[in-house]
Amino acid sequence: MRYRLTLAYRGTLFGGWQRQPNARTVQEELEKALSALLGGAVRATGASRTDAGVHARGQVAHIDLDREFPSRGLVHGTNHHLPEDVRVLAAAPAPPGFHARFSAESKEYRYRLMRVPVLSPLDAPFAVRAPVALDLEALRRATVALCGRHDFGAFALAGGAHRSPVRTIAAAEWQENGEELCLRIVGDGFLRGMVRGIVGTLLEVGAGRRAVESVVALLGGRPRGEAGPTAPPQGLVLHQVAYGEADPVVA
Amino acid sequence: MRYRLTLAYRGTLFGGWQRQPNARTVQEELEKALSALLGGAVRATGASRTDAGVHARGQVAHIDLDREFPSRGLVHGTNHHLPEDVRVLAAAPAPPGFHARFSAESKEYRYRLMRVPVLSPLDAPFAVRAPVALDLEALRRATVALCGRHDFGAFALAGGAHRSPVRTIAAAEWQENGEELCLRIVGDGFLRGMVRGIVGTLLEVGAGRRAVESVVALLGGRPRGEAGPTAPPQGLVLHQVAYGEADPVVA
Repeated sequence: MRYRLTLAYRGTLFGGWQRQPNARTVQEELEKALSALLGGAVRATGASRTDAGVHARGQVAHIDLDREFPSRGLVHGTNHHLPEDVRVLAAAPAPPGFHARFSAESKEYRYRLMRVPVLSPLDAPFAVRAPVALDLEALRRATVALCGRHDFGAFALAGGAHRSPVRTIAAAEWQENGEELCLRIVGDGFLRGMVRGIVGTLLEVGAGRRAVESVVALLGGRPRGEAGPTAPPQGLVLHQVAYGEADPVVA
Repeated sequence: MRYRLTLAYRGTLFGGWQRQPNARTVQEELEKALSALLGGAVRATGASRTDAGVHARGQVAHIDLDREFPSRGLVHGTNHHLPEDVRVLAAAPAPPGFHARFSAESKEYRYRLMRVPVLSPLDAPFAVRAPVALDLEALRRATVALCGRHDFGAFALAGGAHRSPVRTIAAAEWQENGEELCLRIVGDGFLRGMVRGIVGTLLEVGAGRRAVESVVALLGGRPRGEAGPTAPPQGLVLHQVAYGEADPVVA
C-alpha cells in the first residue's frame, strides 16, 4: 500500500533531504517519525534531494505500508513524532505505479532576495540580501535566455550523480514586490546546486558585472568556474512538485 | 547628541524588549552591542515594551551619545556586535525634544493567522494556525466595533503599569491573502497583551462562540476574565511606530 506525502520543512538546521552519516537529515527524521507511529522500519523516497540549508514548502515523498492507514491519522500521527521544523502537510493513497521521484513531471523552486541595506531578522531565515541597485531589465533578459532545453552543467555543483546535464526549464521569472525580488523557476528537473548557481550568475548580470550574452554562452556545457558563485541556500525553497494529477488534501 | 534607531527582531528567543533579570532581552542585547561599539555604557529607550516572543519589524529606540557618530557607522557597527536575531535597520540624529516613547503618535501591530489544517514550518515562527472555517463577516463587524476611544482593560494582561486603560484605536482591519489572514491594528498606544487579547476574543467571534455585541460590551471596562484568551505571541509583530516626521533611511 503506497502513500504519497506532502512535506514542508525549514532547511536551516538540516544537512539536506537525503540520509547521510554525521548530518541531521529530513529523510532520517521522517523515517524515524513514521517508524515510531507505525512500529517497524519505514523507508521514504523523496521527489527532490534538497541540499543543506534549502527549505521546502511542497516536497513530496512516497512510503510503502503493509496495511491501510487513514490519511488524516498519517498526517497528524507522523507530525506528533516529527521535530517542529518538519511537517507532513497532506497524505493520500498513491495512484497505481506512482513514484515520488520518477513520476514527477516538473518541480518549482523559488529564490527570495531582499533589496535592502540591512536584512531584517524576520526575513533572514528565508531570504538573502541583494544590492538595492540592480539592473532588473538585464536580469530579466538573462533569465528568459535560460528557458528551454539546455546543458546546465556550468551551473551545477559536483556530486549530483546525474547521468546527463541536460534539463528543460519551462518557466523562469522574477516577481517584484516592494523590496522583495523572487525568482520562480519551473523545470523537469534540476542538477545539484543548479538553481543557486543560476541565481549567483544572474546577480552578476543584475550588478552589471556580466553580460547577458555570457549567460547564453554558459548553456553550451561550459566548466563550472565560468559561471557565477552558488547563491546561499537560505533563499531557496522547493515550492512544489507537480504530477499529472491533483494534489492530495487533508480530509 | 540623541540618535533615533529603527530596529527589527525575531522575538522567539527573547523575554521581550525590556531589560529584566533572568531573561534575554532585546534592550540588553542592544545596549551591550552599543557599549561594545562606542566604549562605555549606553542606555536605550524603546517606543514599545514588546512582550516575550513578540516580534518587531519597526521598533524605535533613542540613545544619547556624548559625541556625533555617522549614522551609517552606527547601523553597521552596532549590527556587527548584535546577535543575528536583532538588527538596527536605520539610524539618524533625533529631532529636538524627540523621545522614542513619548513622541510616538501611533503604533501599528500586525497579527498573522494561517487558516490551514497543518501549519508549515516556514510560517510557524511568525504566524499562528486558525480554523479554516471562520465567519469573516462576524469577525470584521466585531473588529470595526473596537475602533475609537474606549476602555480596553478587559483585553489587557496585568503588570502593564498603565495609568489609564483608555486607548484610541484609529484603524483595525483583517487583510485576507489566500490562507493568510492578517490583523492590522493602529492606535495611540496599547495596554500590555492588549492586541493578543483582542485577537483571542475576535477568534471566538469568528468561530461562532461569541456574539459581536459581547465584544462591544467588553469596551466598558469589564474584567479580563470576560474577554477571550490571550493569543500566542509568535503571530504578533510591532510593525511600525509613527512620529510626526519621516522615517530615517540609511545613507
